[in-house]
Amino acid sequence: MREGRPVSSNLLTLAEIEAARERIAAYVKRTPVLTSDGLDAVTGARLYFKCECLQHLGAFKVRGATNAVFQIPDADAARGVVTHSSGNHGAAVAGAAAHRGIPAYIVMPEGTLRPKLAQVARLGGQITTCAPTQAAREAAAARIAAQTGAAFIHPYDDRRVMAGQGTVGLELLEEAPELDLVLAPIGGGGLISGLSTVVKAVRPAARVVGAEPAGADDAARSLAAHELIPLTEAHTIADGLRTSLSADTFAHIEARVDQIVTVSEAAIVAAMRVLWEALRVTVEPSACVPYAAIAEGKLDVRGKSVGVVLTGGNADLDKLPWFSAA
Amino acid sequence: MREGRPVSSNLLTLAEIEAARERIAAYVKRTPVLTSDGLDAVTGARLYFKCECLQHLGAFKVRGATNAVFQIPDADAARGVVTHSSGNHGAAVAGAAAHRGIPAYIVMPEGTLRPKLAQVARLGGQITTCAPTQAAREAAAARIAAQTGAAFIHPYDDRRVMAGQGTVGLELLEEAPELDLVLAPIGGGGLISGLSTVVKAVRPAARVVGAEPAGADDAARSLAAHELIPLTEAHTIADGLRTSLSADTFAHIEARVDQIVTVSEAAIVAAMRVLWEALRVTVEPSACVPYAAIAEGKLDVRGKSVGVVLTGGNADLDKLPWFSAA
Repeated sequence: MREGRPVSSNLLTLAEIEAARERIAAYVKRTPVLTSDGLDAVTGARLYFKCECLQHLGAFKVRGATNAVFQIPDADAARGVVTHSSGNHGAAVAGAAAHRGIPAYIVMPEGTLRPKLAQVARLGGQITTCAPTQAAREAAAARIAAQTGAAFIHPYDDRRVMAGQGTVGLELLEEAPELDLVLAPIGGGGLISGLSTVVKAVRPAARVVGAEPAGADDAARSLAAHELIPLTEAHTIADGLRTSLSADTFAHIEARVDQIVTVSEAAIVAAMRVLWEALRVTVEPSACVPYAAIAEGKLDVRGKSVGVVLTGGNADLDKLPWFSAA
Repeated sequence: MREGRPVSSNLLTLAEIEAARERIAAYVKRTPVLTSDGLDAVTGARLYFKCECLQHLGAFKVRGATNAVFQIPDADAARGVVTHSSGNHGAAVAGAAAHRGIPAYIVMPEGTLRPKLAQVARLGGQITTCAPTQAAREAAAARIAAQTGAAFIHPYDDRRVMAGQGTVGLELLEEAPELDLVLAPIGGGGLISGLSTVVKAVRPAARVVGAEPAGADDAARSLAAHELIPLTEAHTIADGLRTSLSADTFAHIEARVDQIVTVSEAAIVAAMRVLWEALRVTVEPSACVPYAAIAEGKLDVRGKSVGVVLTGGNADLDKLPWFSAA
């Protein structure tokens, strides 16, 4: 967060996020907030884990996708929606389109985890695979949009999506209103754009910290440089975080995120093992990045109340990263 | 459930379970009930999973242990409590004793899973290991009780424990009042004694079905024979279900449980994999036995609303049974 920087009039407002909450209420779970005496003892903090891994389809992405799908004008909706996604957003768009009764075209990069592909297929999404690059994803989605007239819903560079993701913050602060710190992973920045908007409006005393893998640290570098530095290569097990910020999400991060921390791959794997054991939920690697930052000592959380968004639970159960080392 | 059998006056009452709920409220979570469109589609049922794997210490056992520990008279409490347990009950007694500020002596059989041992130790329980037989467990606990004056809290053959476990049924029926069927695993029978008491009082139209491994099927054989047949050998991955019924829990099963089904080991492992993926919780093998019965076709659930108690989540993350076969 840049001190003294004027708040742009283009940034999300709390009212938009509250409206999103109403719009998506029938399709989204109020997920539980879990605590662990064991993890509190280890970290010296009071940790509140907002379990979006227990959300419908196993990820917070349902929030933003549903908010976007249900804002498409009736006249356009029958032509369907199209998106590209490494998994959770794709399933979320497919699910929301199914709820609205319209077609969904989902572009998924090669290498996408098997359960994420299966989930999109089960929801009736029409899958197109492409090379695992941002350019290939965008090209494939643009081609489908041109062919079908489907409305494009970007995984994060979409104001409706960002507002939907922010609803997780409304729920978290209702369960734990006294938070000192709110942590979330940063991939494309959609979640933290909405989340930071809520926190700075509802609980301005709380700091908002983003966490990302050192091997996909475009947000940290962009914030340090005060300009958007795209991610050219990603080296991380956190498959949901291998994407670049957009100009819009970067603007929100500059205005509303206090700090970004980066973590090692080893810390992500260790955090995954610890969270599964302590919380009994199958959080996926991307979701473990904020706790990894705490465990790696990147943040001073002692004595603080800390909200952590566990963003998703769609791990590949046949490839548990700590298992080969056991 | 034996038709026409008069209800014994020694059986638990709903009032005892409601009193237990008040007594333990400060120490027990109201756990979430999860649903899965995917599993509903596969089974043709509407499944309500009561997630005691997300209970404090990862298991429903906190309910019964807390109810027992807080009923010990003040004059006796300072000498502490003692129990034997393959894990979850031991942690639950240790945790409840810590809440009351009294010593806890926990006898645990050799071969107990590492995380369950670590959990008891972290809670301040004083662990004694013994041979993995019922006789060795009972002898060790009796010796400690004689030496210390600690009050014995049996894992299931204790009316206070049975009443505490029953509180899970009160919560489940509040979330899903229209259930046609309620399923729970049977080990010693404490959970199903309390649970069936609640279901038959609050929702008499619902059937109560117990599920156990074919390799530890003393409840099925006892119910068929109308007499208690102790378990002499257990061959199952479901480590929480390797115990015999007591006369008291058998009396509850005869009076209030409609059916007992048994499942194969392969079905338990497959159910574990499926539940982790669909629900994103790390349910332990014992907790997967009821869903295994559905998946193995041992029950007709099509078109029915079915409550399933997911009893615990303390799986050994270094020994996932499907992994070697992957």
